[in-house]
Amino acid sequence: MPVFLDTRDEGFEAEFRRLLTAKREDSPDVDDTVAGIIADVRARGDSALCELTERFDRMSLTPEGLAISRDEVDAEIAKVPAEDRAALDQAAQRIRAYHVRQMPEDARWTDPEGATLGWRWTAVAAAGLYVPGGTASYPSSVLMNAIPAKVAGVERLAICVPTPDGAINPLVMYAARVAGVDEIYRIGGAQAIAALAYGTETIAPVDKITGPGNAFVAAAKRRVFGRVGIDMIAGPSEILVISDGTGDPDWVALDLMSQAEHDESAQSILITTDAEFGRRVGQAVEARLETLERRAIAGASWRDFGAVIVARDLEEAAALSDRIAPEHLELCVDDPAPLSERIRHAGAVFLGHWTPEAIGDYVGGPNHVLPTARSARFSSGLSVLDFLKRTTLAQMTPEALAAIGPAAERLAAAESLEAHGLSVTARLSKLNCGPE
Amino acid sequence: MPVFLDTRDEGFEAEFRRLLTAKREDSPDVDDTVAGIIADVRARGDSALCELTERFDRMSLTPEGLAISRDEVDAEIAKVPAEDRAALDQAAQRIRAYHVRQMPEDARWTDPEGATLGWRWTAVAAAGLYVPGGTASYPSSVLMNAIPAKVAGVERLAICVPTPDGAINPLVMYAARVAGVDEIYRIGGAQAIAALAYGTETIAPVDKITGPGNAFVAAAKRRVFGRVGIDMIAGPSEILVISDGTGDPDWVALDLMSQAEHDESAQSILITTDAEFGRRVGQAVEARLETLERRAIAGASWRDFGAVIVARDLEEAAALSDRIAPEHLELCVDDPAPLSERIRHAGAVFLGHWTPEAIGDYVGGPNHVLPTARSARFSSGLSVLDFLKRTTLAQMTPEALAAIGPAAERLAAAESLEAHGLSVTARLSKLNCGPE
Repeated sequence: MPVFLDTRDEGFEAEFRRLLTAKREDSPDVDDTVAGIIADVRARGDSALCELTERFDRMSLTPEGLAISRDEVDAEIAKVPAEDRAALDQAAQRIRAYHVRQMPEDARWTDPEGATLGWRWTAVAAAGLYVPGGTASYPSSVLMNAIPAKVAGVERLAICVPTPDGAINPLVMYAARVAGVDEIYRIGGAQAIAALAYGTETIAPVDKITGPGNAFVAAAKRRVFGRVGIDMIAGPSEILVISDGTGDPDWVALDLMSQAEHDESAQSILITTDAEFGRRVGQAVEARLETLERRAIAGASWRDFGAVIVARDLEEAAALSDRIAPEHLELCVDDPAPLSERIRHAGAVFLGHWTPEAIGDYVGGPNHVLPTARSARFSSGLSVLDFLKRTTLAQMTPEALAAIGPAAERLAAAESLEAHGLSVTARLSKLNCGPE
Repeated sequence: MPVFLDTRDEGFEAEFRRLLTAKREDSPDVDDTVAGIIADVRARGDSALCELTERFDRMSLTPEGLAISRDEVDAEIAKVPAEDRAALDQAAQRIRAYHVRQMPEDARWTDPEGATLGWRWTAVAAAGLYVPGGTASYPSSVLMNAIPAKVAGVERLAICVPTPDGAINPLVMYAARVAGVDEIYRIGGAQAIAALAYGTETIAPVDKITGPGNAFVAAAKRRVFGRVGIDMIAGPSEILVISDGTGDPDWVALDLMSQAEHDESAQSILITTDAEFGRRVGQAVEARLETLERRAIAGASWRDFGAVIVARDLEEAAALSDRIAPEHLELCVDDPAPLSERIRHAGAVFLGHWTPEAIGDYVGGPNHVLPTARSARFSSGLSVLDFLKRTTLAQMTPEALAAIGPAAERLAAAESLEAHGLSVTARLSKLNCGPE
């Protein structure tokens, strides 16, 4: 049974803290294993990749077979039903339209001292996208990772997707094609991250790695961070629904289950100002759990990490939500705009009864790669900014240097960095001598 | 002696690769030590902090004394000469003016299907800034970290700065005051990072940690990444100067030395299209190295990692620069704009003869916390964006859901996520039944 809490109960704060700090992941310490795998790939390149893939994905592989060829992709795509293609096309178009708006602008201005300042954004040259394999090999994830990269202007986009026992997901191949992915490799786990970061004989190294993955992938991303850029360490999915008791309990139940069905470690929480509505949602969840295909997973998630919290009012609900800093937040109220204004820490907000979170997973437009485990306190979902970097620009005139140089000389002296100061002094001396 | 290379030489590519991959840092493997320190601070809080500070910074400390009090700060500030204050005030004003322009805009629009989409930026609630101690305790670093945080809207800003043997840097205190820092703690190393990430009895945890540090600090930041946000793992400083032979060899020599004097692991490189100019810069460096206060450090850096490269033309110079992806890049040519356009990977570009890199360290306006060790390929200098996060927003109308919901149902089915699909189906069914 999930937790039922009421903020008016005496023990609420302690119970809520327990909920906040609940360890949902086993987080096995795979760091030593991962360090070994990375070292192996760095030392032996393709040979290591092939051996590791044989061991973990049970398929024999040669260096020539690491890449999924264009012909293979064509053959896989031919298996995709036309309706699935159309759905994916619509999703891709909407995701692209949203992300195009994220492109930041360059800037350049001249200030009163005569200094011209500014910045310029440029794209990362090469990016690697990790796509989990097996049952969690999601075509939608390919779109969500690849489209922002291509919108940003990344020239070379490589995907690594493990194909356990050789099974390729045709719709993943179609998504890669639609998104403009340049290379696809049938490798996964820490070895894929190592290959992307350091390169092998066959796989050129990239500059940035994004995409979700299991504990091995996460540990490997953490290890190669610095050598390449990474996006985030994603944890199990979460949804928080805030309801004032309007709307359909079954809709809310399904929204809660749409996260719970991802993973036994997923977390679904309802905060409602209407205790009776909370009970009805609980009942609706139980009813749905009798028939859902993934009821074993969703049921375990709901039982172990689910919660229904009754709050005094929406203000209190919003404050609790900010403490949770949820990955996905649904505002199931008739007029969601004022409530939305109260929310500060959340990866993505879905406003009103007609915006199920699942829309955001596929076709809404915003990215579905979002900060989990309370990291919305300090980080954002994936965006084109993850594939761009900013170069700052500064140009002094002699007059500008005369105006601000003395302060630099003074501070350099205070920091005992003589050459710093002299590099300004030498120029100012020339200036003070007048034109040659 | 630094390396002198010519791109026309037969062995150039091999020599250049050696330069690119030269291991400049010892990178001692302090990870186990750091893991122990973090665990200790998590388990014993303030007591651990005091003991570790006694051990590493040779000063006895009680939990009450962890914070540098307002009165202590006042007393330290009183020691700062008026000219230093004025210089720091000017720097702070210019840094603020630059970073204010970085504030990104919120967005909201309604698309043809009737979906209202957008995003909203909000500030991180609490940030911790690490300031190295000892000789590398730089007031300018305080400004460069704290001002973007405050411009972003961070309410609570805590600094950790070790004070070995109890020595406080008065100008660091003044910089903290000017920048609006809220709390200052006299702790450093991995223990400071642990305290900021997990909190102790005295120090409340923060959401984001920024600032440079030694190997222990870097390893600790890497370990707490995910629990909190971090900025980057900074390495030793670098400068690359591109010159066409115009300008004063002594100015370039001083600019090269202004990085070399930071650290024996720093790297200073000149790429010039004029071999004779390259030789003259080399001679000017040797001359300056006879008198510079920090000649031992600067000389070692120049000897071990310095390089003068003669290129065929500026185009080739720019291409080599992009392979290096330098932290600081000076374009010492008469007309730097066209050359600047050719540069893609650099943390900060300084245009023209009158813009010594040291201006950017103090009073230029752009941030001096910049990506090192070729990470300008995928990351940017510190900015207000490091202290903001973006929440995506989506609101469907019944009509919008009718237009795009079927694609979501289709993709959910393809991904075997039944509840995802049902959360859309349940709503569309209601819609198809017409108004109640």
